[in-house]
Amino acid sequence: MVLQRFIETLRPAIEDELRQTIDRIRSGDQDGLWAMLAYHLGWEGQGAGRDAQGKRIRPLLVLLCSVAAGAPWQPALPAAAGVELIHNFSLIHDDIQDQSKLRRGRPTVWAKWGIPQAINAGDLMFTIAHQAVLEVRETMTAEVTLNASNLLHQACVDLTRGQYLDLAYEGMKEIPLEAYWPMVAGKTAALLACCTEMGALLACSNPDRRKAFRQFGYSLGLAFQVVDDWLGIWGNTALTGKSAENDLVTGKKTLPVLHGVSQEGEFARFWNTRPIHPEDVTVLAKMLIDEGTQAYIEGIADRLTGEALVALDVASEHNEAAQALRELANQLLSRDK
Amino acid sequence: MVLQRFIETLRPAIEDELRQTIDRIRSGDQDGLWAMLAYHLGWEGQGAGRDAQGKRIRPLLVLLCSVAAGAPWQPALPAAAGVELIHNFSLIHDDIQDQSKLRRGRPTVWAKWGIPQAINAGDLMFTIAHQAVLEVRETMTAEVTLNASNLLHQACVDLTRGQYLDLAYEGMKEIPLEAYWPMVAGKTAALLACCTEMGALLACSNPDRRKAFRQFGYSLGLAFQVVDDWLGIWGNTALTGKSAENDLVTGKKTLPVLHGVSQEGEFARFWNTRPIHPEDVTVLAKMLIDEGTQAYIEGIADRLTGEALVALDVASEHNEAAQALRELANQLLSRDK
Repeated sequence: MVLQRFIETLRPAIEDELRQTIDRIRSGDQDGLWAMLAYHLGWEGQGAGRDAQGKRIRPLLVLLCSVAAGAPWQPALPAAAGVELIHNFSLIHDDIQDQSKLRRGRPTVWAKWGIPQAINAGDLMFTIAHQAVLEVRETMTAEVTLNASNLLHQACVDLTRGQYLDLAYEGMKEIPLEAYWPMVAGKTAALLACCTEMGALLACSNPDRRKAFRQFGYSLGLAFQVVDDWLGIWGNTALTGKSAENDLVTGKKTLPVLHGVSQEGEFARFWNTRPIHPEDVTVLAKMLIDEGTQAYIEGIADRLTGEALVALDVASEHNEAAQALRELANQLLSRDK
Repeated sequence: MVLQRFIETLRPAIEDELRQTIDRIRSGDQDGLWAMLAYHLGWEGQGAGRDAQGKRIRPLLVLLCSVAAGAPWQPALPAAAGVELIHNFSLIHDDIQDQSKLRRGRPTVWAKWGIPQAINAGDLMFTIAHQAVLEVRETMTAEVTLNASNLLHQACVDLTRGQYLDLAYEGMKEIPLEAYWPMVAGKTAALLACCTEMGALLACSNPDRRKAFRQFGYSLGLAFQVVDDWLGIWGNTALTGKSAENDLVTGKKTLPVLHGVSQEGEFARFWNTRPIHPEDVTVLAKMLIDEGTQAYIEGIADRLTGEALVALDVASEHNEAAQALRELANQLLSRDK
């Protein structure tokens, strides 16, 4: 696995860069503030360690895309840290918004320190993320640095727009199938598109190549969300292990649900007339298969996966990083999890 | 009044720039998100109008400092909008953190749209603020644009640090007098220092002059907070009109309270042994006068005001904008409100 070899080199570099970025704000009387960020990033406190850190997919994408565009990965490190910090800022605020008390098996920041401090810790991580990107100035021109900063800011606008729609949908009864796409374009695809374009930008690629890398991240993001929605209903843990966490029970407006409702069949009648309990999950998941929803979702996931891989082929050099990106995409988009 | 003449020119330009900045994110399916920002900024919804907009002190400082440093104000407009949006982002999140249901006589964003949407609206305003500053690139070099962006980011780091301390102090019983300064340095002085330095930076001033302008804003910010603390206890509305809103009742860790407690006299005994009710306000406010706290606070306010005006004299050209800044400082720091 080429990917594994890249990860062994890049992962420690990403972790170092992130720690250095966070440690810059450490100071005597505000150590408690630093501790919240270090806890959320999985380095400090109970349960700290690799599992608590997550996979750092986004910074890996930035660095691999830089190499796949024919440049070294080192100059892109500060921007890689920046996108990971934006992802984590959004998780801190998301957890408050969703009232989630656990993330990766550990209490969330708001559950540990209260909502006011968690909002503030998120705001600080947001700021540090943008500062990190400006650090590419060490090796890049002022103009490229500004472009990188603009790229990340635009992703943040898209993120908050997607989040707005997600929150707004919660309170709505009838949501058309098409309403799904602007939400996930903002919530998931925007930041992945930013990562892949960022890698190309910092490799000083021309606009066409940047666009192709962006398309790769964007399609990858949409495909990833559709696969995640599939897993949330038909995945092993969702269906057998923990029915209470199945997306059908939590009432999320996922693509299978929106499609199922749009079919106006048995699933729609069930969904619209009563609350869903864990014991209903097997029957409803089966209804969605019988009514063609599962096939529809798989068709879309396959199409988007194909689009992502074609864009990657168009964008990248024929080198090992491109191969690693293909492996990463296939891992992210696999349904045997 | 020179200041009044400047305000008549600058205020509409600031309002226009802010509206253009916010309107850029307006789009069909996310009009509701735009509406939250436009409501908070005082343009839309119930009670919209001049009173709901506030005084736009921070953008005025940016523009006046540019002129006082010998440059035109127009190129600084995007940055002026940026600092005002950062101020307003922090207000949206502050109101959630303090559970304040009213601001300038109108329901706060979270009171109208709920905490999840208000956190997200604040996050969007934060992003737009930083994007606005990057717009100075239209008339400035990439290097100056990066410096401006860095300046605002550093102010945001300081803001969140001050906010962290403020929130942390709420739950603490004994806070030493010195703990006051890092809190207000972050919460109030950092953004005003950013405004005045930003004006000088965009006027392409040399580092010494930038430093003097920064000192002006920093001392002005500290003085402003001390005067605000004075008004919170001995001001007309606090003492006579609305005793329930007197800082002694709300339990805020203001400078008079921290000083009064440090004197270990009658005030300290009262403060440490029972909750303060509106009917106690007159007696306690009198105790603080008798024990020398009021004179101490006034001494500090006068010293900081003096420092601000000296820094302004050192920094600025002898022109009308400098005179307007002196008038603005005197208005902000007056205790007859």
